[in-house]
Amino acid sequence: MFAVRNARNFCNKLSTMKDQIPFSSDFIFRQLFDTTSSTYTYLLADTDTREAVLIDPVFEHAERDFQLCKDLNLKLKYAMNTHMHADHITGTGFLKKLTNCKSLISKASGADADIHVDESDAVTFGRHKLQIFATPGHTNGCITYYSTEQGIAFTGDTLLIRGCGRTDFQEGNSETLYHSVHKKIFTLPPATKLYPAHDYKGLTSTTVDEEKRLNPRLTKNLQEFVKIMDNLNLPYPKMIDKAVPANKVCGVFELSPQ
Amino acid sequence: MFAVRNARNFCNKLSTMKDQIPFSSDFIFRQLFDTTSSTYTYLLADTDTREAVLIDPVFEHAERDFQLCKDLNLKLKYAMNTHMHADHITGTGFLKKLTNCKSLISKASGADADIHVDESDAVTFGRHKLQIFATPGHTNGCITYYSTEQGIAFTGDTLLIRGCGRTDFQEGNSETLYHSVHKKIFTLPPATKLYPAHDYKGLTSTTVDEEKRLNPRLTKNLQEFVKIMDNLNLPYPKMIDKAVPANKVCGVFELSPQ
Repeated sequence: MFAVRNARNFCNKLSTMKDQIPFSSDFIFRQLFDTTSSTYTYLLADTDTREAVLIDPVFEHAERDFQLCKDLNLKLKYAMNTHMHADHITGTGFLKKLTNCKSLISKASGADADIHVDESDAVTFGRHKLQIFATPGHTNGCITYYSTEQGIAFTGDTLLIRGCGRTDFQEGNSETLYHSVHKKIFTLPPATKLYPAHDYKGLTSTTVDEEKRLNPRLTKNLQEFVKIMDNLNLPYPKMIDKAVPANKVCGVFELSPQ
Repeated sequence: MFAVRNARNFCNKLSTMKDQIPFSSDFIFRQLFDTTSSTYTYLLADTDTREAVLIDPVFEHAERDFQLCKDLNLKLKYAMNTHMHADHITGTGFLKKLTNCKSLISKASGADADIHVDESDAVTFGRHKLQIFATPGHTNGCITYYSTEQGIAFTGDTLLIRGCGRTDFQEGNSETLYHSVHKKIFTLPPATKLYPAHDYKGLTSTTVDEEKRLNPRLTKNLQEFVKIMDNLNLPYPKMIDKAVPANKVCGVFELSPQ
């Protein structure tokens, strides 16, 4: 009986470890949503210095995001993207007009920005740090932002909740995406909370553990995964011809969508 | 110089205290969204017992929410509502068909349920507890669920982010709503995170501190507030004639929307 109870306690402990890493008390986190493109934007900040970053801001919501920074008494340091999006125009250019922030994107994205980053670089705001992993496959320039301390990663379109980004346009490559997920994201601690750039079913986050167990595509082997991606037969992305040229220049205000 | 540093440290500390109360590591929290009615559903659970509750589930997403409970190895104990909604059909009846959960709503709502609660009652799942505050005004039966330990409250339609619920149908009463917010919600600690039943701009949460400073309606005095609410001239709610009769019987499966 004692052995059973011990085993149960051990399992409970394991399960607890797998479930949650609480945010530190000096870390501000807000998830924001654009219903048109189902894009998630993330506002992160340091409570002491009030420095903030926005991940994947959307053009139409730049003023909302700016207002939220003002409301929370935050100084926007970076408006940064996980990649050069094809489904919405980024808010970075507009946010640069509204604030003193710098735009930031990966070198491999091919997009203009004040700051270009790459694997092994890090983004800091206050005492907080986001490491950068190159996670290409949806596009060449896709990156994942990761905070070890908070146990969170922002996976862009590389890994979605029970899904992944398309690999049939821009420089999409299924094999590359598969390796990015398996070598970079799935090797993070199981409890790591994953925040994607999109969700189309109203889910807001997932974990490494969940996706390793339940992702219907990425639990398959490489050959099966490539076959699935080759046979998705998705329609031509309706915003791509407007969004990609705009996002190449950080969605500057002059290129406002009509 | 020392005095300045001390003052700054004190301000930083105050600011930190106001910003964040981290979730405990054994508390699961997931926010879910319905784009049609802009309704937020919340899944809360205990990592040890795996007991879970769903707040304000939506009929059309009952299977999504059920699947998420399965994916996370959770036992749904209660499908519960903040009030009898007029803009969507609740998922509680459907969730009762899919699981062994009980439906729960306030006595004052006038809706059927397995469990009726009232001010001073509490809902427990595992070692976690949500206190119940009666916060009428949008409807007579509106309640707010509050966890002291996690520093969160689920305000339903009583208090929205920079807004509040309508008071021009069902048993709506602006004066009552004003007192509910000022006497019950605004007296909670400033750092308390508030999760509403809806947002229409893609915001996902707020805090007591923010709403006390920034809510454009509820920072006004009672007379001004009532005047604002009297002059909203909102259209007749398009789902009300379907939703209220269905929600009176917990949105049972037989009353599926066509």
